[in-house]
Amino acid sequence: MFWLAMKFVCPQNQLTGAIALASRAVAARPDRPALAGVLLVADLEAQTLALTGFNLEVGIHLTVAAAVKESGELVLPAKLFGDIVSRLPESDVTVTVREVTAVLACGSSRYEIQGLPAAEFEDLPVVDAQETLYLPVEKLLEGLRASLFAAATDETKQVLRGVRVTASAERLELAATDGHRLAVVEMALVEPGAEAPVAMANLEATIPVRTLRELERMLMPLPEVAVAVQCDRAQVTFASGDRRLTSRLLDGAYPNYRQLLPAQFEREVTLERKQLVAALERVAILADRKNNIVKLTIDAIAQEVKLSVEAPDLANGSETLTVQASGESIDIAFNVRYLLDGLKVMDAAEVQLRLNGAVQPAVLQPLGSTKMSYLIMPVQIRS
Amino acid sequence: MFWLAMKFVCPQNQLTGAIALASRAVAARPDRPALAGVLLVADLEAQTLALTGFNLEVGIHLTVAAAVKESGELVLPAKLFGDIVSRLPESDVTVTVREVTAVLACGSSRYEIQGLPAAEFEDLPVVDAQETLYLPVEKLLEGLRASLFAAATDETKQVLRGVRVTASAERLELAATDGHRLAVVEMALVEPGAEAPVAMANLEATIPVRTLRELERMLMPLPEVAVAVQCDRAQVTFASGDRRLTSRLLDGAYPNYRQLLPAQFEREVTLERKQLVAALERVAILADRKNNIVKLTIDAIAQEVKLSVEAPDLANGSETLTVQASGESIDIAFNVRYLLDGLKVMDAAEVQLRLNGAVQPAVLQPLGSTKMSYLIMPVQIRS
Repeated sequence: MFWLAMKFVCPQNQLTGAIALASRAVAARPDRPALAGVLLVADLEAQTLALTGFNLEVGIHLTVAAAVKESGELVLPAKLFGDIVSRLPESDVTVTVREVTAVLACGSSRYEIQGLPAAEFEDLPVVDAQETLYLPVEKLLEGLRASLFAAATDETKQVLRGVRVTASAERLELAATDGHRLAVVEMALVEPGAEAPVAMANLEATIPVRTLRELERMLMPLPEVAVAVQCDRAQVTFASGDRRLTSRLLDGAYPNYRQLLPAQFEREVTLERKQLVAALERVAILADRKNNIVKLTIDAIAQEVKLSVEAPDLANGSETLTVQASGESIDIAFNVRYLLDGLKVMDAAEVQLRLNGAVQPAVLQPLGSTKMSYLIMPVQIRS
Repeated sequence: MFWLAMKFVCPQNQLTGAIALASRAVAARPDRPALAGVLLVADLEAQTLALTGFNLEVGIHLTVAAAVKESGELVLPAKLFGDIVSRLPESDVTVTVREVTAVLACGSSRYEIQGLPAAEFEDLPVVDAQETLYLPVEKLLEGLRASLFAAATDETKQVLRGVRVTASAERLELAATDGHRLAVVEMALVEPGAEAPVAMANLEATIPVRTLRELERMLMPLPEVAVAVQCDRAQVTFASGDRRLTSRLLDGAYPNYRQLLPAQFEREVTLERKQLVAALERVAILADRKNNIVKLTIDAIAQEVKLSVEAPDLANGSETLTVQASGESIDIAFNVRYLLDGLKVMDAAEVQLRLNGAVQPAVLQPLGSTKMSYLIMPVQIRS
C-alpha cells in the first residue's frame, strides 16, 4: 500500500478557525477512531486545504486557502490537532505528512501527530437533488432564532426534535413545538409588488435542531447573503461561501400545527417587552422553587397586569405592569419559563398577548416586522 | 415573645453587593436553616445596615450606609434574598420587617420573604487579642497571589491546606506546600533605612486557603491601604474599611520549610517567562494525555532549553527556547502543571531556574522585586 505525501503551509489563526468549525461535526465519543478525526485534503492545483468533520448525522465541510506544496489526504485526531494548532504562535504553520504521521512546525515548535489513512474516513452522503433553493441568510437566521427554542429536547420526541421548514423562492415558514408550546414564524422573501424570482426548488422537511444550531453558527460570521439548499428524502445540504453543512432529516409526519392556532381572540393585552421580561425574571426566582407557575391577573378596568407567585412558608411576590388591555378582566396562569423563552427571542419593543378563556390556548406575538406566533397552554389554577 | 420591627431603605446596587459579599461565608448545604441565612441588623442611630454570613468556619461581616427608619434584626435566606434583590430595578429598595416576615418594595415590585429570628443565628467568635497588626493591603495581596496556589487542596492534608503566615511590622512571609512543591514569599514592609514603625503584634499562624481566598476577594476592590489583623490561638480576624473577615486557624505543627530550600546550586538557567509559559502550555496538551511529565534538555553550550513530551502511538512534541545557562548541560523532568502553576503567578519578565542534579530539588525564582522561591521536585526519567 502506498500513501501519498502531503505538505501545506497555512496561517495559524486561519487553520485554528477551520479545525474548530469542522470539529463541530466530530463525534465526542465515537465508536471507532476515524470518527474522532477531521479529514484533511490538500490540493496542489487549487492551492486549497479542505477539512471535513462527520459524526454520521451532521457533516461539515469547508475549504481554506493554503500554500500547498504536495497534494494529499489524511485523517488527524480532531481534538488533539485543534488543541495544538490553537496554541501555536500566530505565524505560518507548516504541515508535512509522510505515511500517516503529520509533522507540524511553527517557529521553534515541532509536533508529530499520528493520523489515519483517508480511506478510513466515512464519506459524506450525497444529496440526490436536481434543483437548488437559495434562501436569504439574514431572514433564515431571524427565523431560526424565533423558532429553534420551542423544539423538543427530549430524545424520545421523534420529529418534534426538529424544526418544520417550508420554503420556496417567495416564502419561508418555520415551526417548532415540544407538545407544550408552538412557535411559528412566517416570512415573505419577495418585497410586496416585486417580481417573483425564477422558479426554484421547494423545501418541506423536518430538520434536526442540532443541525440548525450548527447552521446558525456556520452562517453567522459569513459575509454571504444567500445560502444554497439542496434536499432529497433523507438528507439536506446548506452551502454558503466555502462552507457546506450536510445533515440527515427527521423521518415521520410532522403535526398539522396550523389548526392549533386559534382564529379569534376575546382578549388582547399589549405589554412593553423588556419590562415584562425583567418582571417575569424576578417572579421566576420564586416560581423556580415551586412549580414554575406565574399567575397573571389582567385588570381591564385599571389597565394593569399583576404577575404573582406564591411559595408558601418561603416567600411570595408580585409585579404590577401598566398595559393596554381589551376584553374582560381575567386570571390566567402560565409556566413562567415558557413565557420567558418566547419573549426573549422576540426583538420587538412591544408584544401582544392574545387570549380566549383561562384554559384555552394563548398566543404571544411581537408587534413588529417579524410575523411570529407563539402559542402556549395556560396552567389551570384553583381559585 | 416580642420581635422588634425593622425598616430601612437602601439603593438596590449597594444592597446587592453587600448581600453577595456576606453570602460568600454562608454554607451551601447547611444542616440547619439559620446557617443558610444572612443576618441583617439595622441601626437607627448610626443609619447603617450590618450584614453577616457565617458557615461556622469563616465569617464575613460588613456595614453599609442605609436610611434606617426603625432599628431591628432578622435572618433572611441568603440565596433567595440575594437572587431577588440583584434582579430588582436600579432604584431604592425599602425593606420592612414585621415579626419574621420581610417585605421588599421597589418600584411596582413587592416580595415577602419568610425569615428567622436573629437569636437563631450563630454568633461570630470573638478573638481574644490585645494587640493589632496592620499590614499593607498591596503587599499582602501580592504575597497571597504568589503562595496560595501551592497549598494542598486535599481535605486529608491537615495543616497543608493552609498558608503559613509569619508577619511583624517589618516583615511578611508566606509559605505554602502540598508536599510536592513549596512556595515561599518574603517581603520587607519597611523601606530600607526607614524608621521601623511602633512595635505591634506579631503574627505566626496557619490560615486556611479558603479564608485567604475570601480575604483576597474582600480586599481587592477596597481603597484602604492597610488591613488590621488580630489573632489568638484559634481565630484570626482581618478588618479593613467596613468589612471584617473572621476565620478559625489550622491547628498543628507546620513543616519547617526553610530547611527544604537548597543553599547552593550548580546550575542556573534564565528564561523569558511568557515564552516559557506559552511553550509549556503547548507541550502540556500532550503531557496531560500521558503522565504530565515534560523533559527539559538544558544545553549549556548552545544556550538552549528543549522542552519535550512523548505520548507514544499518539503524538510527540518539542519546543526550543534560547536561554542563558550556567553550569553543565543536564536532562531533567518535571510535572508540567507544577511548573505552569508557579510561572503563572510570577509577574516578572524573566525567571531563573536553579538546579543541582537531575533528582535534587529545583527552585524557580522571578527576577524582579518580589522575593519568591518556588521549589519543585524533579521526576526521575529513564535514559
